[in-house]
Amino acid sequence: MKIILIGASGTIGKHIAASLEKEHEIIRVGSKSGVIQADITSPASIEHLFKQTGPFDALVSTAGDAHFGPLKTMNDKEFRIGVNSKLMGQVNLVLIGQHYIKPKGSFTLISGVLSQDPVLSGGNPAAMNGAIESFVRAAAIELENGVRINAVSPTVVEESPEYFPYFPGHIPVTMKEVIAAYHKSILGAGTGQVIKAY
Amino acid sequence: MKIILIGASGTIGKHIAASLEKEHEIIRVGSKSGVIQADITSPASIEHLFKQTGPFDALVSTAGDAHFGPLKTMNDKEFRIGVNSKLMGQVNLVLIGQHYIKPKGSFTLISGVLSQDPVLSGGNPAAMNGAIESFVRAAAIELENGVRINAVSPTVVEESPEYFPYFPGHIPVTMKEVIAAYHKSILGAGTGQVIKAY
Ligand SMILES: NC(=O)c1ccc[n+]([C@@H]2O[C@H](COP(=O)([O-])OP(=O)(O)OC[C@H]3O[C@@H](n4cnc5c(N)ncnc54)[C@H](OP(=O)(O)O)[C@@H]3O)[C@@H](O)[C@H]2O)c1
Ligand SMILES: NC(=O)c1ccc[n+]([C@@H]2O[C@H](COP(=O)([O-])OP(=O)(O)OC[C@H]3O[C@@H](n4cnc5c(N)ncnc54)[C@H](OP(=O)(O)O)[C@@H]3O)[C@@H](O)[C@H]2O)c1
Repeated sequence: MKIILIGASGTIGKHIAASLEKEHEIIRVGSKSGVIQADITSPASIEHLFKQTGPFDALVSTAGDAHFGPLKTMNDKEFRIGVNSKLMGQVNLVLIGQHYIKPKGSFTLISGVLSQDPVLSGGNPAAMNGAIESFVRAAAIELENGVRINAVSPTVVEESPEYFPYFPGHIPVTMKEVIAAYHKSILGAGTGQVIKAY
Repeated sequence: MKIILIGASGTIGKHIAASLEKEHEIIRVGSKSGVIQADITSPASIEHLFKQTGPFDALVSTAGDAHFGPLKTMNDKEFRIGVNSKLMGQVNLVLIGQHYIKPKGSFTLISGVLSQDPVLSGGNPAAMNGAIESFVRAAAIELENGVRINAVSPTVVEESPEYFPYFPGHIPVTMKEVIAAYHKSILGAGTGQVIKAY
């Protein structure tokens, strides 16, 4: 398969890349890293990305920023960091990518446990994750030609110890489990699913 | 109680107003209707609203637009109709309103069944509803002084027959049930809840 991996240089993305590169062609993408640079916060940049890649079998996202910070001082501008990156960045990968994906291809987006089980200072990523999870359920019933879409939802991952203090009582998920969740979406047959890695 | 009702002239809002006005002071708000005009898509307009109302006991939203339309032709601009109105409009009512609400006050936002059970052409409202539902769970653990927050999630309501064709197999919810869901949030004691009216 020809797999476009957005965020391939990241903590999660590099493991997804490594787990698939022996058997598949991986096109690594980041805003600064990767073999192709594309900024998912810009629809024009996403369009340019797919013009370069041409038709593909799977679009996999392990990218998308959000704002961590106390609700008490949060404002519109901070909340829109997540809106523009984690939400609209990933939504636009699908809205634009649907015109380039091959029949029976798949989209795999990333959400996160905070949609269901919030932590302090996590209001923005929580809302963005909830939006992504509902979006994949809705998009799944409209995508044509057998194209599938799912979200992978990890809790804090074992290789992100800097986030552990924000997630008291969350048992960090192993990369093995996160990789398995991505494989279920990319190599499996489900659609409209939120695949939990927690 | 002093209750600010955003969307008081709407299909749902007028019933919420009527159900509470005998025992409570209702401040009716709309972008064009109401005793105070405020546009929730503008943080400055929301700030101006609370400057006029002063401290309040409950902020109730029955407002927020989203874009209905096929995924196949949807673009960033259309998707942002929901982002700017149903999502950021309601989120900003909370981010700004938290600085004006009285201790033990409550916020009640509106989501909708599409977050969990999508219909064709509903990708944008589905995602916005999912974001609102996760946001209330996250905000509930950070709001101070006993302030509560919930979302009411109706399916299509009995008084919106124009939407029935888009919701095959959904049994329209009665206004009595929608009013009850709002009363549970406003007059009850729960927080971080998605109160289903379906
Ligand atoms: N780490 C965790 O514990 C955890 C848990 C649950 C969910 N998540 C979610 O998983 C996602 C990835 O997390 P991570 O920890 O792996 O992040 P990370 O290490 O910061 O990596 C992010 C990756 O995304 C790329 N990227 C960032 N912004 C981009 C943009 N605007 N356009 C294109 N590419 C962009 C980065 O490449 P460039 O620098 O080249 O742009 C990088 O490859 C995030 O959405 C996060 O919320 C993470
Ligand atoms: N009707 C249904 O079957 C149904 C089912 C599930 C969920 N919902 C959700 O419930 C909400 C209300 O639905 P509805 O059918 O009652 O809507 P509606 O009849 O169109 O009424 C909308 C109300 O919101 C106000 N409003 C709209 N935009 C505003 C803005 N930018 N700033 C301030 N006020 C604004 C309107 O007043 P002005 O015209 O003066 O601005 C009006 O009072 C929507 O979010 C909808 O998605 C509806």
